Amino acid sequence: MSANSYIQENQERFLNELFDLLRIPSVSADSKFAGDVRKAAEFIKERFAEAGAENIEIVETNGHPVVYADKIIDPSLPTVLVYGHYDVQPADPYELWDSEPFEPEIRNNRIYARGSSDDKGQAYMHLKAFEALHNLGQQPVNLKFMIEGEEEIGSKHLGDFVKANKERLKADVILISDTGLFSMDCPSICSGLRGLSYVEVEVTGPNRDLHSGQYGGAVANPLIVLSQMVASLKDENGSITVPGFYDGVEEVSAEERAALNAAPFSLEAYQKDLGVDAVDGEAGYTTIERTGIRPSLDVNGMWGGYTGEGAKTVLPSKAFAKISMRLVPGQDSATITQLFKKHFEAIAPASVKVEVTPHHGGEASVTKVDSIGFRAASNAFEKVWGKPAIPMREGGSIPIVALFKKELGLDSIMLGFGLDEDTIHSPNESYGVENYLKGIETIMEFHQQFADLNK
Amino acid sequence: MSANSYIQENQERFLNELFDLLRIPSVSADSKFAGDVRKAAEFIKERFAEAGAENIEIVETNGHPVVYADKIIDPSLPTVLVYGHYDVQPADPYELWDSEPFEPEIRNNRIYARGSSDDKGQAYMHLKAFEALHNLGQQPVNLKFMIEGEEEIGSKHLGDFVKANKERLKADVILISDTGLFSMDCPSICSGLRGLSYVEVEVTGPNRDLHSGQYGGAVANPLIVLSQMVASLKDENGSITVPGFYDGVEEVSAEERAALNAAPFSLEAYQKDLGVDAVDGEAGYTTIERTGIRPSLDVNGMWGGYTGEGAKTVLPSKAFAKISMRLVPGQDSATITQLFKKHFEAIAPASVKVEVTPHHGGEASVTKVDSIGFRAASNAFEKVWGKPAIPMREGGSIPIVALFKKELGLDSIMLGFGLDEDTIHSPNESYGVENYLKGIETIMEFHQQFADLNK
Repeated sequence: MSANSYIQENQERFLNELFDLLRIPSVSADSKFAGDVRKAAEFIKERFAEAGAENIEIVETNGHPVVYADKIIDPSLPTVLVYGHYDVQPADPYELWDSEPFEPEIRNNRIYARGSSDDKGQAYMHLKAFEALHNLGQQPVNLKFMIEGEEEIGSKHLGDFVKANKERLKADVILISDTGLFSMDCPSICSGLRGLSYVEVEVTGPNRDLHSGQYGGAVANPLIVLSQMVASLKDENGSITVPGFYDGVEEVSAEERAALNAAPFSLEAYQKDLGVDAVDGEAGYTTIERTGIRPSLDVNGMWGGYTGEGAKTVLPSKAFAKISMRLVPGQDSATITQLFKKHFEAIAPASVKVEVTPHHGGEASVTKVDSIGFRAASNAFEKVWGKPAIPMREGGSIPIVALFKKELGLDSIMLGFGLDEDTIHSPNESYGVENYLKGIETIMEFHQQFADLNK
Repeated sequence: MSANSYIQENQERFLNELFDLLRIPSVSADSKFAGDVRKAAEFIKERFAEAGAENIEIVETNGHPVVYADKIIDPSLPTVLVYGHYDVQPADPYELWDSEPFEPEIRNNRIYARGSSDDKGQAYMHLKAFEALHNLGQQPVNLKFMIEGEEEIGSKHLGDFVKANKERLKADVILISDTGLFSMDCPSICSGLRGLSYVEVEVTGPNRDLHSGQYGGAVANPLIVLSQMVASLKDENGSITVPGFYDGVEEVSAEERAALNAAPFSLEAYQKDLGVDAVDGEAGYTTIERTGIRPSLDVNGMWGGYTGEGAKTVLPSKAFAKISMRLVPGQDSATITQLFKKHFEAIAPASVKVEVTPHHGGEASVTKVDSIGFRAASNAFEKVWGKPAIPMREGGSIPIVALFKKELGLDSIMLGFGLDEDTIHSPNESYGVENYLKGIETIMEFHQQFADLNK
């Protein structure tokens, strides 16, 4: 029986199982969901058992656990190590969801739920691809799986897990589905990812909230000071002003820039989709380059003073911001974090006190497009989608790719099936039913191609 | 019997009655407290009845009601119209209170509770001063009272009330206790107040929250744009950059500036009290002048993106800020609001949409220090405190003072007894027991002095 028909026969069950997983609010960033994160791990473990995997174990860490499973069919065959994560981003603001974030619902053939695309939906494709290969007696390579629960908070403890399990994780390549396609008509394979440095800043002015009438004009306002400090982080060209920030940034060859810009990208459609009249970014680079090969700085959250209904004439004591920087090859996350901290504390005026607390970070990475793994992925798309996949640099971060390279010496192939319209990390996250089912088939084909290319 | 001994004999009851009023969370800014605001009005009404007032009425408005009461002893005598407000500021952030904001508690001879100073404590002094004069048979002037419930939200409907009750509100002077003393050793009388223009701004970038990895660097970040716009509102001299903002600002004479700066003000003590290493404000003016005779601009609240626990890599769709400007004589609140709106919308980059919504405003005011009312206040301090009170320009706003002048043609005397340490509008608001009791005596003396000076 063909992979395709197996998937069609079981598609309803494949969807129902994913829905059950999506119903578990495994938000790793918020401690009040810790029990649910654990539940999600248990769920994954049970599905692996049903699918026919072996050596299944919920491996404890100092944070949320990692689920490990494998199926070694012949030690002489190549081994693919699959990585995914079962934790999700917080779902708030809840009021902006059209349906319950943790009660999946299919509308116009898309699965709406937090985690449907990032990354429960994409991780679960691997479980079902394995089940299919196993039941069809067509598993062409040895398979190992590690599904973690802390990706959305920087994979805090995965490093310890990897270092402690090098033997168990031995493989020829790592396969990850946590990225996206350029479009359904133009499949793509992620050939690079940005790194991340995430910090939280606290600006303290007076030791208590003050009446803005009594003190306004005579005492520094932390919200205004923070605004001035944030505004100063970018110059008129959209370049980041933190000294040393661009040191070592690898310049991308004219050829690769041309290749990236060859993608059928429409700025008009891009702006229309986002509802903006103009894009904004570093001068001298296209939108694709700004998110693909250039570092960036964003304020992910900012708050202070009175934010409730009505008007409160307060001069607040404190102002806060969550600031993250996306990094490219040649930038070191820890170094950037230190440069930022040093700079941000240095530009603070005498009228306030500033504290910078690092949250987490990760390194950027690039994948060789001529590697066996990348070629196996290309062939799989060719076969299942009927067209070649273009290489694409993605803006997001999967810090663990650099970790795997360093600790396990393995390249990661990012075989992702998401789309921009999935709006991951946002309200109404969704994932195409077709992406889910076609992804399973493509993964099955990848394993076959990888086996063949290794012969 | 002397005023002083009457107050001593009744001080426990005077405090208990105030405590009962402070237990009612009459937060006018938050609709969920609407019932409590009403309760506070009923409470005031009942106390007036017990004190011997007449024509007591809870006058409905399109918002929270006004409590009116009076006691006309002789139409040929001068009439003092007392104004106060029974509504309070929101109490949040609750976690910063050392005791329940709406469960008053006395610590080191200070009453801790929201509204203890602003303005329940100060308004209630007038009720007790009246009771004392009435019971002692020493009421020297006709007394009228209007205690409103919307001062903290800009006295939205007081204008309608005043216009509709000009006959009932006829008087010779208005007396208000909603300001502060320079210190217990240096009593002062407010000779001027700043006006207010309060707006809320909304900056919208993309039509949904985005993944900062996928889009960061290519799409304008509303929090960064708002920060840049806010930062641009002040130049390097701390001057406000809104075009036309300073037009018509009345320059204060060198003499009056000298008089203001004659106050025994210690910058060192001021900074120590606030816990700051440096003050900040408009170049060329002292701290007293910056809050007294110069306009200012503050961000009272700012928010957007993810503000919860942990890290969320979101590029938010919207950013918000509550911005207020304190105005001085010569500036018109409505005009300033329009100038700000026009400017703020004009400086918005093409990558975002900006909306400015006016909250409320009020005009600045100055009191003639040679008026009968001001002299009566000075004499009252002289008599009760044993020392003259210095004239002081205050930074806060009591918009209704300008309203009374315009609609009733009456000057307002601001006979306030608060202190900076009351931290009104902040957590742990408090009011000195001595200020409360001595204030009652001073008010009683003011009425006597006003009667005498009018003879």
